[in-house]
Amino acid sequence: MKTGSGNLFEVDGPPGPDERFDPLLEREGLRIERIVSTGQASPAGFWYDSPHEEWIVLLAGAATLEFEGETEAHAMRPGDYVRIPAHCRHRVAWTSASEPTFWLAVHYGDTAAARAVSRATTS
Amino acid sequence: MKTGSGNLFEVDGPPGPDERFDPLLEREGLRIERIVSTGQASPAGFWYDSPHEEWIVLLAGAATLEFEGETEAHAMRPGDYVRIPAHCRHRVAWTSASEPTFWLAVHYGDTAAARAVSRATTS
Repeated sequence: MKTGSGNLFEVDGPPGPDERFDPLLEREGLRIERIVSTGQASPAGFWYDSPHEEWIVLLAGAATLEFEGETEAHAMRPGDYVRIPAHCRHRVAWTSASEPTFWLAVHYGDTAAARAVSRATTS
Repeated sequence: MKTGSGNLFEVDGPPGPDERFDPLLEREGLRIERIVSTGQASPAGFWYDSPHEEWIVLLAGAATLEFEGETEAHAMRPGDYVRIPAHCRHRVAWTSASEPTFWLAVHYGDTAAARAVSRATTS
């Protein structure tokens, strides 16, 4: 009866140059995604600006988030979670290059429209 | 701009006799919950039988799930996730008593109706 099982920390193949985005579950208005960062950061001047909310948790590794209008960056360590409201502009300022950083992201609301927009928005 | 932040592995106060259920996010049709088990298991003959789907991941500790109709139990180690369809009867057969077990559960669908039902169903 159980389906859709796996392990968040198992990754197929060697790490490439880009972050990995692996959808784990997709439903109307809901998308659960595993993200693996290996030293990447958002380009200078890039801001994620999503029309839907998301809830993210860092499960392994380390990263720093920046939120527009905040002077202080937001260090993320294993277990740290944060809810990011729709249109809250943010960027990934840094991820660890010495170990993979595993994130779990829960996108909810208008996720179909949001998917195309959220990764293509620059300021 | 960031809100609803915290750390999944930080728990207020000493462990009590019961599992802890901490809602982290509640939206229409969506509930993200942190569960901390400290050796508890479902009572004999008890089956969770939820009208909504859920997606759960074990983040620390260890546990064993059972699904009705399956002869083999489902060992859960850190990072293991599983999607449990609506009305897929299951129980927590065992959780580690030597360390806390941290779960993240994403409930989706008719979560309001489901909340009352899912913890009160025995066979």
